[in-house]
Amino acid sequence: MTHLTDIEIAQQVTPKPINEIAQKAGVPEDALDLYGSYKAKIDVRALQDQPASKGKLILVTAISPTPAGEGKTTMSVGLADGLSYIGEKAMLALREPSLGPVFGVKGGAAGGGYAQVIPMEDINLHFTGDLHAIGAANNLLAAMIDNHIHHGNALNIDTRSISWKRVVDMNDRQLRQIVDGLGGATNGVPREDGYDITVASEIMAVLCLAEDLKDLKERLSSMVVAYNFDKQPITAGDLKAAGALATLLKEAIKPNLVQTLEQTPALIHGGPFANIAHGCNSVVATKTAMHLADYTVTEAGFGADLGAEKFLDIKGRMAGIRPDAVVVVATVRALKMHGGVKKTDLKEPNPQAVKDGLPNLMRHVDNLRQVYGLNVVVGINQFTFDTQEELDVVLQACAEKDIPVEVADVWGEGGKGASDLAKRVVELANQPQEEVRYAYDLDTTIQEKLDTLVSRIYGGNNAKLLLAARRQARQLEELGYGNLPICVAKTQYSFTDQAGRVGAPTDFDVTIRELRLSAGAGFIVALAGNIMTMPGLPKQPAAESIDIDVEGNITGLF
Amino acid sequence: MTHLTDIEIAQQVTPKPINEIAQKAGVPEDALDLYGSYKAKIDVRALQDQPASKGKLILVTAISPTPAGEGKTTMSVGLADGLSYIGEKAMLALREPSLGPVFGVKGGAAGGGYAQVIPMEDINLHFTGDLHAIGAANNLLAAMIDNHIHHGNALNIDTRSISWKRVVDMNDRQLRQIVDGLGGATNGVPREDGYDITVASEIMAVLCLAEDLKDLKERLSSMVVAYNFDKQPITAGDLKAAGALATLLKEAIKPNLVQTLEQTPALIHGGPFANIAHGCNSVVATKTAMHLADYTVTEAGFGADLGAEKFLDIKGRMAGIRPDAVVVVATVRALKMHGGVKKTDLKEPNPQAVKDGLPNLMRHVDNLRQVYGLNVVVGINQFTFDTQEELDVVLQACAEKDIPVEVADVWGEGGKGASDLAKRVVELANQPQEEVRYAYDLDTTIQEKLDTLVSRIYGGNNAKLLLAARRQARQLEELGYGNLPICVAKTQYSFTDQAGRVGAPTDFDVTIRELRLSAGAGFIVALAGNIMTMPGLPKQPAAESIDIDVEGNITGLF
Repeated sequence: MTHLTDIEIAQQVTPKPINEIAQKAGVPEDALDLYGSYKAKIDVRALQDQPASKGKLILVTAISPTPAGEGKTTMSVGLADGLSYIGEKAMLALREPSLGPVFGVKGGAAGGGYAQVIPMEDINLHFTGDLHAIGAANNLLAAMIDNHIHHGNALNIDTRSISWKRVVDMNDRQLRQIVDGLGGATNGVPREDGYDITVASEIMAVLCLAEDLKDLKERLSSMVVAYNFDKQPITAGDLKAAGALATLLKEAIKPNLVQTLEQTPALIHGGPFANIAHGCNSVVATKTAMHLADYTVTEAGFGADLGAEKFLDIKGRMAGIRPDAVVVVATVRALKMHGGVKKTDLKEPNPQAVKDGLPNLMRHVDNLRQVYGLNVVVGINQFTFDTQEELDVVLQACAEKDIPVEVADVWGEGGKGASDLAKRVVELANQPQEEVRYAYDLDTTIQEKLDTLVSRIYGGNNAKLLLAARRQARQLEELGYGNLPICVAKTQYSFTDQAGRVGAPTDFDVTIRELRLSAGAGFIVALAGNIMTMPGLPKQPAAESIDIDVEGNITGLF
Repeated sequence: MTHLTDIEIAQQVTPKPINEIAQKAGVPEDALDLYGSYKAKIDVRALQDQPASKGKLILVTAISPTPAGEGKTTMSVGLADGLSYIGEKAMLALREPSLGPVFGVKGGAAGGGYAQVIPMEDINLHFTGDLHAIGAANNLLAAMIDNHIHHGNALNIDTRSISWKRVVDMNDRQLRQIVDGLGGATNGVPREDGYDITVASEIMAVLCLAEDLKDLKERLSSMVVAYNFDKQPITAGDLKAAGALATLLKEAIKPNLVQTLEQTPALIHGGPFANIAHGCNSVVATKTAMHLADYTVTEAGFGADLGAEKFLDIKGRMAGIRPDAVVVVATVRALKMHGGVKKTDLKEPNPQAVKDGLPNLMRHVDNLRQVYGLNVVVGINQFTFDTQEELDVVLQACAEKDIPVEVADVWGEGGKGASDLAKRVVELANQPQEEVRYAYDLDTTIQEKLDTLVSRIYGGNNAKLLLAARRQARQLEELGYGNLPICVAKTQYSFTDQAGRVGAPTDFDVTIRELRLSAGAGFIVALAGNIMTMPGLPKQPAAESIDIDVEGNITGLF
């Protein structure tokens, strides 16, 4: 164990030039667009002649998150390094971080300890500009909507129905609810409006689900931004915006290549919110990694009830990809919280609390095995204060249910610490799997799909749609959007819609307050409770302690 | 002459790999951060060992702009190519374009015809992300201001006094005047607010005037964003934001290297608005080019009364640089408009109108020669329909006043078309110049500085400060900002403050309505009339016709 911070560890390692990493990964030189020496975009069209690899996909997901932290990204990085360590050709496919959290609460999205992707400063700061490009496209469309209305509103848009918000890649609560277009007739048309953080933009989801430029343009064109006074949807295509938006995104759709501290190639590309969107990296990145590497490690946001479910039922179903093995990450600390222990008491050994927390883990594992028919291994992300007795509780419970399980210390040891897990993953990924199946069928009603998710995945009874949501469901079905998959936006901390109900609750309904159409992304968002699409800064934002010296060295980033 | 569009011409040329351009320019490989094959950022600290060049600086400015167009950027590019053409080691230093105009009115900022910088698509679309970084820094500071107030307002900020606006790099009139912080106590504090376009952010001006990272941080720290209830200024430093802002700008402060169609190296870096800021590329880029090249061609925005004046009195004075020669660009078409011809009648030959328009040109030339003591050449940017008789009017008038003058067809012929102008520029730049002097002294009052500008540069009588501006002048002087240079924001179309008064009017006052402090940039903006800091989109924005095909080829960009 070490007392170095993440940024200090990252800065100790001299990264390899990215073209060497690319060569190792099988990416030809002419497919690379370098962004400095350690980042590159890949033109995936130049990869078509490459020999296909084994193409095994490993999905990393987790128990329901707790404030104790599960270290899912760190485990993903460590597992990919572990696969490299045992001699396999591995690659990572992860999400890009947003600037908002970097300057808000301390913490980035590049792993931690000895399991990080680098250059972590760049990855956390602008990276290759994808999020800015998405923001620009989002805000161009917003400007075109209001400009259309300002110049006569030929499309007869009902300004009260505009669902398209502007975005900024920053935590800025002041912008959640605004009135714009003030100041008289030369300054637009006054209306209620608001901002989301960029990663909550539908364009982020569209970029992440698009197969290529053609698909991107079609999805952009079909995004519904408002309704006219006849209640018919108005799309970005109606506003003639799709070509310009796609032009702004021409580089952003190319996946970004970086490396881990142990020089495993990593594609970091796309980062949609895991509540109002599907919360995993781009289809292009996942497929590119699967084309190049024998083992691709990818991560889904939040717990398996949200992240893995959406990966499987939305992304996987759309893109025709399926994990060959799933790692469900758990920590002793987090299991203790699911067993009722408070965050302040986590350092106390408490095997009984671990045991009491296990039903949360088991429900996620059961879902993945029984609902989806997948090969699952539990990966215990080891922390310094974990006792052997506590670890044994998890190991024994898994053994009893014939669930593969491995302990890994990736934070302290990197890939070496995940070598057992890596071996087990290779074993599982090469075993036969049951036939592909999904949690719900697309050709059922919205109500039925939601009921199925609540009962099969969350372990509850039914979805209760409030009046507004029932009305929206009827409208969406009438407009022909009824067969889209559902993207549930609910608290990640519980199987239920109430953050405090940890563990594995039973006998509950999930209340759906609102439905939102993401016609370009191709799903319907079902909101259970108030979902925050624009975070705020804390009283002492991380920004106050971030600094750069005259030589360009950054401190306080993590 | 050709009928190809700018983008078609640009796409016909195969650019050289940017490391070859860099090598030719004397930039060592390890100073380059590649952004793809044809763009690179330069770490200027790695250039210090390079042998110094002649370091001659050529400033390109113009007569008062007209709707006929003067082609100042095209002339700058053509002149740099012309200097290369006659065998000199030349380099360009230009501004970066904003996305707003690209998607608004047809037109970019990369030159035109056979005098362009490339890759023009990339330069016009995100480029290396500098504007996005500036926007992010600007908006982080905005979020930190409102967050400070939300969490108790320890600095006692008067929310009505907040002058710091949020920005977006888009033409979006809907955001000019807004009310934000609505929706109750969890969503900020309601107040009147508004957006500027990113290039109007003070951070853009700061980045362009900063000598290095240290200077950047100091300037960022001293930016005044609001006043407290005791009417004392609140700075970004008071909010502990300077380190985070500088961190966001760590790459943006590095100049960007590209090339012209004729492979002359070009630094394109920074693009502050020419009204509420000083309107020229970064000091870092200008000095880097001067360090590397024998002849650096740079451009100042608008006419010489605004752009060149600010280049000389603000940028040049702060950075200790001075042009060795100045090119004043004029066109026969524009002179006709200054002579009273309407835009629709410009194709009619009209030597008398050219003659009637000459006083505008002559006043600019006289200012540069007499007020600043500079070597000046008039560069006539030739258009297809110009007659020899019309051209002769200009040539003869210049000859009579002993003003060097050359005709150049850079749009149609590129560098070859500017070879005579280039020769004349070399001749002038190597002649002795009078001692450095400025239009006004810094240690006079704000009123005196403004009076001096109106009488010496604009050819009028006095500056008339309205009551609010007089009060602001007194406050700024009391707060110790009285010795800053003045950045006048007035119409670019006239020496006066009224756009319609073309030519060379006399006997007028200029009314100053408002003063704004840019303490980080280090100047006081004096607003004559309504200055637009957020443009709007036209009825049919260019965005509607911009498209990209499945192969990634862009059309409709120009």
